[in-house]
Amino acid sequence: MKQYKGHGSRDRAVIVGGGFGGLNAAKTLAEAAVDVILIDKTNHHLFQPLLYQIATAALSPGEVAEPIRAIFRRQKNVLVIMREVVAVDKEKKRVVLNNKEAVDFDYLILAPGARHSYFGKDEWERYAPGLKTLTDALEIRERVLLSFERAEETHDAKERKAYLTFVVVGGGPTGVEMAGAIAEIAHKTMLGDFRNIDLAETRVILVEGHDRVLPPFTPKLSHDALESLQRLGVEVRLSTLVSNITADGVQVGDEWIMTPNIIWAAGNVASPLLKTLEVDQDKAGRVVVEPDLSVPGFPDIFVIGDAAHCRNASGVLPAMAPVAIQQGIHVARMIRRGLRGEDRIPFQYRDRGMMATIGRAKAVAQLGKTGFSGLLAWLAWCLVHIMFLIGFRNKVVVMLEWMRAYITYQRAARLITDRSRVDAQNS
Amino acid sequence: MKQYKGHGSRDRAVIVGGGFGGLNAAKTLAEAAVDVILIDKTNHHLFQPLLYQIATAALSPGEVAEPIRAIFRRQKNVLVIMREVVAVDKEKKRVVLNNKEAVDFDYLILAPGARHSYFGKDEWERYAPGLKTLTDALEIRERVLLSFERAEETHDAKERKAYLTFVVVGGGPTGVEMAGAIAEIAHKTMLGDFRNIDLAETRVILVEGHDRVLPPFTPKLSHDALESLQRLGVEVRLSTLVSNITADGVQVGDEWIMTPNIIWAAGNVASPLLKTLEVDQDKAGRVVVEPDLSVPGFPDIFVIGDAAHCRNASGVLPAMAPVAIQQGIHVARMIRRGLRGEDRIPFQYRDRGMMATIGRAKAVAQLGKTGFSGLLAWLAWCLVHIMFLIGFRNKVVVMLEWMRAYITYQRAARLITDRSRVDAQNS
Repeated sequence: MKQYKGHGSRDRAVIVGGGFGGLNAAKTLAEAAVDVILIDKTNHHLFQPLLYQIATAALSPGEVAEPIRAIFRRQKNVLVIMREVVAVDKEKKRVVLNNKEAVDFDYLILAPGARHSYFGKDEWERYAPGLKTLTDALEIRERVLLSFERAEETHDAKERKAYLTFVVVGGGPTGVEMAGAIAEIAHKTMLGDFRNIDLAETRVILVEGHDRVLPPFTPKLSHDALESLQRLGVEVRLSTLVSNITADGVQVGDEWIMTPNIIWAAGNVASPLLKTLEVDQDKAGRVVVEPDLSVPGFPDIFVIGDAAHCRNASGVLPAMAPVAIQQGIHVARMIRRGLRGEDRIPFQYRDRGMMATIGRAKAVAQLGKTGFSGLLAWLAWCLVHIMFLIGFRNKVVVMLEWMRAYITYQRAARLITDRSRVDAQNS
Repeated sequence: MKQYKGHGSRDRAVIVGGGFGGLNAAKTLAEAAVDVILIDKTNHHLFQPLLYQIATAALSPGEVAEPIRAIFRRQKNVLVIMREVVAVDKEKKRVVLNNKEAVDFDYLILAPGARHSYFGKDEWERYAPGLKTLTDALEIRERVLLSFERAEETHDAKERKAYLTFVVVGGGPTGVEMAGAIAEIAHKTMLGDFRNIDLAETRVILVEGHDRVLPPFTPKLSHDALESLQRLGVEVRLSTLVSNITADGVQVGDEWIMTPNIIWAAGNVASPLLKTLEVDQDKAGRVVVEPDLSVPGFPDIFVIGDAAHCRNASGVLPAMAPVAIQQGIHVARMIRRGLRGEDRIPFQYRDRGMMATIGRAKAVAQLGKTGFSGLLAWLAWCLVHIMFLIGFRNKVVVMLEWMRAYITYQRAARLITDRSRVDAQNS
């Protein structure tokens, strides 16, 4: 029995998640003789590599997100459902939505992504939001901007210092990008906008447990990134752990830092949906997949992207957009091969390098075992991100914003819109 | 005793509200030997005439709002405070903020604007949000977009019909613009994006108590606007009143219309702050001002914009941006004249006409007793709104968006970001 209407004589592929993996799987199924149902809990595909620019007021949400329906307007074999999938029944081959409806599948591609992990300290989330969704990014944006407002109006020097202190936990790409952007906001963008605060009072602290930032990059690039951060005025604390977070501040190694501004970029855990599969998961909650990315024993169920634990010669593949994109394309091809009666082939990741930006004209880029940094890396970073951004309009607007920001140091989206948050802080 | 720090030997002008009136007052005080404190409950000046384009996903918030601090970065006699003013003490010459601090003034310019009025039926607000702030606009945007999502997924024809029904209450400029834009979204933008709904099923109903839309315009222009709306597929109910609104629908004249999509554009009431002045107000809560816009008996307190009841030969001045702008400039000049020992002069409104847009290439414009409509009026509307929009970046981006929308019928900001709302509707 097919629970969800619209199922005809053709096989149905259900895709859970409209991120890089799910989107590319659906696109690659354009020519296949299957009906595709793409289910996402939001109505948009989010270009996550630029999400930190929403959180730091450089870009507007509309510029890094595109309605999933609009993307598949002309691909008529795709039906989009805006719902959360709460369970997978791998025996009955169906997924259950949060409105209790069930959707049957012949093939299932699970690309539900990951959330922040607080390593068992879930109570920290309230004080140290992470950065995965547009809502997360807008929340961080409002907190940061509101903190400057409160610093401006307070008559208490200690309170002002706390409002002007920002702690970013986690020295991976997201943490480095956030710390660099906040330092730029404090030292450049806001300069001149306030009358009562000396922006040189601002402290931006980046905390990393390893002995270097950007651990997946070469030591040389980590060092370059560290120097760039320090030139921007970021205090980087390496080999340091965060042991407590409250409404008032954070314990960083031996130091208690008073601040309401803590941003979490330290750990990921795969979507809780995967538990309902009842198969092997690693300690980050990722499903350990077969070489063709299917679930052991269930060849018609695939797991891809941040939700998959997939190894190649150099180890477990990282949670990065290129991995998810290539995996999405691969599983769609495996379905197409199956329809033609061909055998599957293992997934092979083609490593085209990785990049992280630190600030204006500062980035690091790694290609295989070599790398480069500085202006050239930054230009490459800009180019690649604009190329992969979805929608011609977004490419143009983001490019204009970056050119303007480069020249003026200004940020386009310095808005506090959430009245409930503002009212809550009115005391 | 001066309660708020930073007060030196110069007189202090306190401005409440960073809308068109307050902003222009502060700018006009640039050359005056006064300290200016501008207080607004948000951090941005909002270009309200384009707010309906946020609500209908055509523009992003950042494009019609500019941080007030950024506007006054170089005008060093202005201090900006992001706070709500909760009371005015006209005898002691101070205002009280929502954090209980007081700000003393020598001159006070009250420009707090207006909110929607539900004519005593405040319980309707929950089901029929109005459109005054960015938060309002984002709320309406999410409701409209989510309604199309729910229509797509439901298996119940009656429910689908309700989700695809939109009722706009009030046929003034905001109501006409909202109804026209929603009709365009339903019939053009969304076309092709959905698989299970026939967008021709969409109903957009505009309800107006008077016998014509756009009552302040000439009858000829009202008629032109009506025809344009009808060509867009809007059902216009004239001389019709709304008598009940619930979570399920709205009573429009004799008809009960099932819909969760009701937008309120029917009435205004001036800010409740004005009550604390304890002076004469009209029935819309506006302060009845002297010819120089001061409060009777208190020549150093002015009320301007939507909060002021100000008459000229043709009646009470309407709640429009040009009135507020001219009044803001006037009161600042009166303060400057006072500092020079010159007498005040009465405010005189220079009517430069008014405009309203109905949709793509459709608008009406009135200049004195004559008017014109159609493409020419629409081009004039676009031009004037881009001219008055604050910020070069916003002018460029909005112009690009409009050109793109004109060609493609697409909308740039079709995003649902408020997880709490989505979760609440997950049942």
